[in-house]
Order: sequence, then structure tokens, then C-alpha cells
Amino acid sequence: MATEGKVVEHPKKAFGWAARDPSGVLSPFNFSRRETGEKDVAFKVLYCGICHSDLHMAMNEWGTSFYPLVPGHELAGIVTEVGSKVEKFKVGDKVGVGYLIDSCRSCQDCNDNLENYCPKFVVTCGAKYRDGTVTYGGYSDSMVADEHFVIRIPDNIPLEFAGPLLCAGVTVYSPLRFFGLDKPGLHIGVVGLGGLGHMAVKFAKAFGANVTVISTSPNKEKEAIEHLGADSFLISSDPKQIQGAIGTLDGIIDTVSAVHPLLPMIGLLKSHGKLIMLGVIVQPLQLPEYTLIQGRKILAGSQVGGLKETQEMINFAAEHNVKPDIEVVPIDYVNTAMQRLAKGDVKYRFVIDIGNTLKPSS
Amino acid sequence: MATEGKVVEHPKKAFGWAARDPSGVLSPFNFSRRETGEKDVAFKVLYCGICHSDLHMAMNEWGTSFYPLVPGHELAGIVTEVGSKVEKFKVGDKVGVGYLIDSCRSCQDCNDNLENYCPKFVVTCGAKYRDGTVTYGGYSDSMVADEHFVIRIPDNIPLEFAGPLLCAGVTVYSPLRFFGLDKPGLHIGVVGLGGLGHMAVKFAKAFGANVTVISTSPNKEKEAIEHLGADSFLISSDPKQIQGAIGTLDGIIDTVSAVHPLLPMIGLLKSHGKLIMLGVIVQPLQLPEYTLIQGRKILAGSQVGGLKETQEMINFAAEHNVKPDIEVVPIDYVNTAMQRLAKGDVKYRFVIDIGNTLKPSS
Repeated sequence: MATEGKVVEHPKKAFGWAARDPSGVLSPFNFSRRETGEKDVAFKVLYCGICHSDLHMAMNEWGTSFYPLVPGHELAGIVTEVGSKVEKFKVGDKVGVGYLIDSCRSCQDCNDNLENYCPKFVVTCGAKYRDGTVTYGGYSDSMVADEHFVIRIPDNIPLEFAGPLLCAGVTVYSPLRFFGLDKPGLHIGVVGLGGLGHMAVKFAKAFGANVTVISTSPNKEKEAIEHLGADSFLISSDPKQIQGAIGTLDGIIDTVSAVHPLLPMIGLLKSHGKLIMLGVIVQPLQLPEYTLIQGRKILAGSQVGGLKETQEMINFAAEHNVKPDIEVVPIDYVNTAMQRLAKGDVKYRFVIDIGNTLKPSS
Repeated sequence: MATEGKVVEHPKKAFGWAARDPSGVLSPFNFSRRETGEKDVAFKVLYCGICHSDLHMAMNEWGTSFYPLVPGHELAGIVTEVGSKVEKFKVGDKVGVGYLIDSCRSCQDCNDNLENYCPKFVVTCGAKYRDGTVTYGGYSDSMVADEHFVIRIPDNIPLEFAGPLLCAGVTVYSPLRFFGLDKPGLHIGVVGLGGLGHMAVKFAKAFGANVTVISTSPNKEKEAIEHLGADSFLISSDPKQIQGAIGTLDGIIDTVSAVHPLLPMIGLLKSHGKLIMLGVIVQPLQLPEYTLIQGRKILAGSQVGGLKETQEMINFAAEHNVKPDIEVVPIDYVNTAMQRLAKGDVKYRFVIDIGNTLKPSS
């Protein structure tokens, strides 16, 4: 359980939208950001994606939120100032920040470029820096971060598409790479066709996979195949369809964050196949253990990606023209967008046009 | 569900002990084995281990048994005859047979020396060969098998110790190797101290690991550390002990085949750690999925080993003096041994002295 963060008055005025209580309703909010330190990059935020975690956090669904809470961890913008020891960036560069804004920088995971598994990592919004001060996210006009946590946006990725890559994108890219599911010709399943799922289809296709979308919604078939480029489609609740595809997949990226049966997913895997779970599910799932033993199958979790890998991911996305499908909205639409997101009514990521629509209230 | 096997009268008389019904009680049984084919090795069985699967099968606990059922898939003996095209063995060689007696020899898994995952593999006892005839196991005086499924027993492994290596041994050796848990200095947990568990401790120590035994029984601590050479011991039901060891293990070999909580096991793993399940559990387990995500942890199953790996395992065991702890018993003690095994009253494997105690009834 998070305790309330230390609110200090920093020298730089900032402005954003914040949730004030577990209703999650966002409203204009004045706050401040720290002076640009010698290793810091400050940037003007132009776009920020709306991740499902923002919704969880704004409504305190994980029980760890404190208020006021400025969501947003899919930021993209333009560098306005760099510290004296910054090596990688200069004023005017296109940059972004994803889920992580800090980590301990000294543990084994940090040394291995796996800051996303550092036990002390700091989330970009709704958390506390190591000095106890509050992290305010990207539903705001500016950001400052140590350059280690800043990603360079390749020139051919328009900024409005960059933010969702930094969270949703790397969250699916990382396990595809780590678990060896990035080889051409593999058969990859994607469960759930939301913000993560649609990126999983696109990255898996870019790696050369044959992609099967697995969904509870028959009406997503056309979209999955015709628009996203999946090769086939299975309705997870149809035993006949599942039975017909038993043992055909090398790996599955499961993006669903609600309780759902694992048996059909494990059954779809070939021997030595891998079921990778990305959606955080607090309630216990029913695991048919023997089905793992029979085919030496693997069930694993994965959580966003490290900074080095995030840069690698966005460079790969630029090279292979992998872009999220987005709906750009003005900041004063954010509460409606949150409601629509809660219902799954978005294809596939809302992105707030911060640069053109966020105006200081005073 | 297995259907009854085809019983044919083969030219070679054989004699063993068989279960006749789901009581699992074994009694003397006359049957026959096939003529030694051109790729076959026939051998006199001298010892056969009693695996927990034998008990499951004799009592039809998996619902797939048919009778009469001659158990035994941990055989060791001396070659008596070889077919004209046998290349690897000659009369007088020390050999053994483990869990598998046949497989399709043409699927991807068979081509990859993973016969243990071939969808058509044939178990050494209580199953059916591809021609539909019954496989009778090693609680018998003789065996015949294609040389591909026969293992050479190294000279410095006394035959009574060989059988349990061919099933229990390779079952723990294979995942330690495959999942990279065979590197010196790793911290490896072993859950359950039975036939599999005690071999896991020994192989993990032979690989140079620091080994922690995790058990529900406090009275196993002395044995685990002083006799088997484990480095430490945790009582799985003691939250304080588990809490004190959170995040310390690189991998866990879980040999328990009854429902048990996964949360403490996953908690004991470091990030990127691996929980390998070997005990077949038919009832679903409760999986705290989010605990896998937070540390990119892996939960996997594994099932015995392939033939190439089994030979490699026993050669490694010979070189590193890895031997099971056994209690050698005469054949007429087998029903008592089964009862004691059901209660966990054996350190750690019964081995039937077939050569000296199995006498034909007529």
C-alpha cells in the first residue's frame, strides 16, 4: 500500500489534469516539476497515450493510489532543456518517456538493462521518486527525467504514435524477444485485442510470424484479419474451434487482465510452447498443471521492458513501420475517453493531444 | 482411456508379477515376449525399481489401466541376445530400460531426441505397442526392446542402482539441464523429498548448486542436510521461514504430485526464476498469476527425458558418483513395498532384486 507522497514546491510550474479521488474523474491541476538536473532532460509534452493502467490508478483499483494523481506514462514531446552532463539529447530532439521514470541503477537487474524488474523502480505517474516526492504523469504540459529513462523517437514515427509504443509496444515486444517468439515462420497466438493485443499482432507479423487472434468476440474476426493483418481467428469459447487448433501454436501472448480459462490456451500450444501472460490478474487462476508436464510447456509473465530494449523496440518499429492504431482526443475529452476505455470502446489506444488542447487554467 | 491391449502368444516365455484388478495386489503371472528382432536387444532383468507411477497404474488411479498389468519401468540387467542389425550392444553388456519402450521415430520431437514428448510414445509397462500388443514391465525375468530404447549402464554403476536413474534420475536431470539450472553457484530449491526429490538434490549438488530442500515435514531437515548434502532446509508451511527466503532461488524443482500452494514457491524465486513442476496433479492448482508478471518468472512442466539425454544422464551420474538411495527387496515383498510407498515410507526407492528372488511358478 502506497503512503501519500511528499508534495514539495519545485521551481518549475507545471499544469495538467489530475484525479482527486477514487471516482477517477480528472480535472485541471497546477503543480510543479524539479529544476533540470545535470543528467536531466526536460521536455514539452505534446502527446500522451491513455493506458488501461491509468484507469486502474485513477480509480485506485490496485489500492495503492494517492491523490491528486496525474496519470500518463506514454509521453512524447520535444526537448526544451538539457542538463550539463546530458550526453544523448539536445534541445529540439523528439523524445518520450514510458512506464518507468527511475530505478535504483545498481541492482543486478539494472545492470542487466532490466530496470523494469528492479525492485525499486519508479513508475512515471502516481508513484514516488526515491526522495519521496510524487511522480506526476504525462497528462500535463511538461516532463523532466534523467536521460537514462528518456527514449529517442525516430524521425519517421509521428509523435502522436510514439507514446503507446513506449508502454503497450514494449510490453509485447519484450516477451516476444526474450522468449524466442521472434523467429520468422513461428505460429503465434494473441489473446485479447485491445491496446496490447493489437500491438502484439503487429510486432509478431513484423517478426514474420503466422498470427492467430484468439478472442471471446466473434465480431472482431474481420477487424483482426482484414485490418490488423492476422492470419487466422479463433473464438476462445468455442470448443470446436479450439479443438481444431490444438497443438498448433509455438507461443501465445495473453493480454487479458480478467479471470479466464488457461486450459484452452495451454492446449493450443505445441510441445515446448510458451504461454506469456501480460495482463495483471489479482484473483487466482485455475491451472491444469498436468497439461504443462505433458508437453514441457511454459507459462510465464512479463512486465513492460527495460530502457535499452524500449529504444531497440521503437527503432525496430520505425524500420518495420509498426504503429499503434490510435484515436487522438483533446484533453477535455479525457473523462469520456476513460469511460469508453473501461467499456473497451476504442481502436485501440486513445492519445491525448496535449500540445494543442491543454491550456493553463490561470 | 486406454482400451484393453491385444494379448498374443509370443514365442518367448516370460514370467513376472502382475496386478489383476484395481486393488493393485500383485501375484505371479506367466506371459510371453516377442522374438528378438533384427534391431532388438533382449536382456535378463536383474533389478527393477518401484516408481510411484507403478502404484498409480496398478491401482488404475489414472483411469487408463488394463489387466493383467506387469509394472516396472526402471529395469537393469544383462544382454542375452541381440538382433542381426544391432550396433550398440552385445551379449553380456550391462543395460537398462526406463519409462519409454517405443515412439514413432519420425515426428519432430523424435527427430530432436525428445522421444518423451512424441505424441505416440509407448510406456514400458501397462500400455500398448504400436501394433496393439501389451507392454509388460520390468517386474519380470526378461525384456526385449529396440536398441534405440536401451541404455548402456556404465561399469561403475552397480546394476541395483541403475534402474531408478533411468526414470527418477532423468526426470530431474532433464529439466535442470533444459532450463539452464545446471550452472555452478545457482541457488536451487527442491520441493518434496521422495524418489524424485532426493535425486534432484544429488544432481543439483553435482552441478555445483547451492540446494535448499523445501518440505512440509520438519523431521526431514537432518536427513536432507546431513545425509543428502542439501545446504539448507525450509518448512513450506511456515510463513516466517518462507518470508525470510523470498527472492533467493534461481530455480525450483517441484516433485510433489498432490495439490499444494504455488504462491510460496513463486515467491521464493528471484526475478526470472523458474518453477519446474514434475509431479502430475490432475486437480487444478490455484495460480497467483500476477506474481509471475512482476518478476518475469516461469512456471513449466517436464516429463522424464529423451533417450540421448538418458544416456548422457547416466554417464554423468557415473562420472560424478550420483546414485539413488535404495532399499533392495525380494519380489515376494513387492505388495508390502507398494503399501509402504503409498505412505511415503521409503528412503528413497525400492528396487526389486529380480535376479535372485523371482522364481518361475511352474
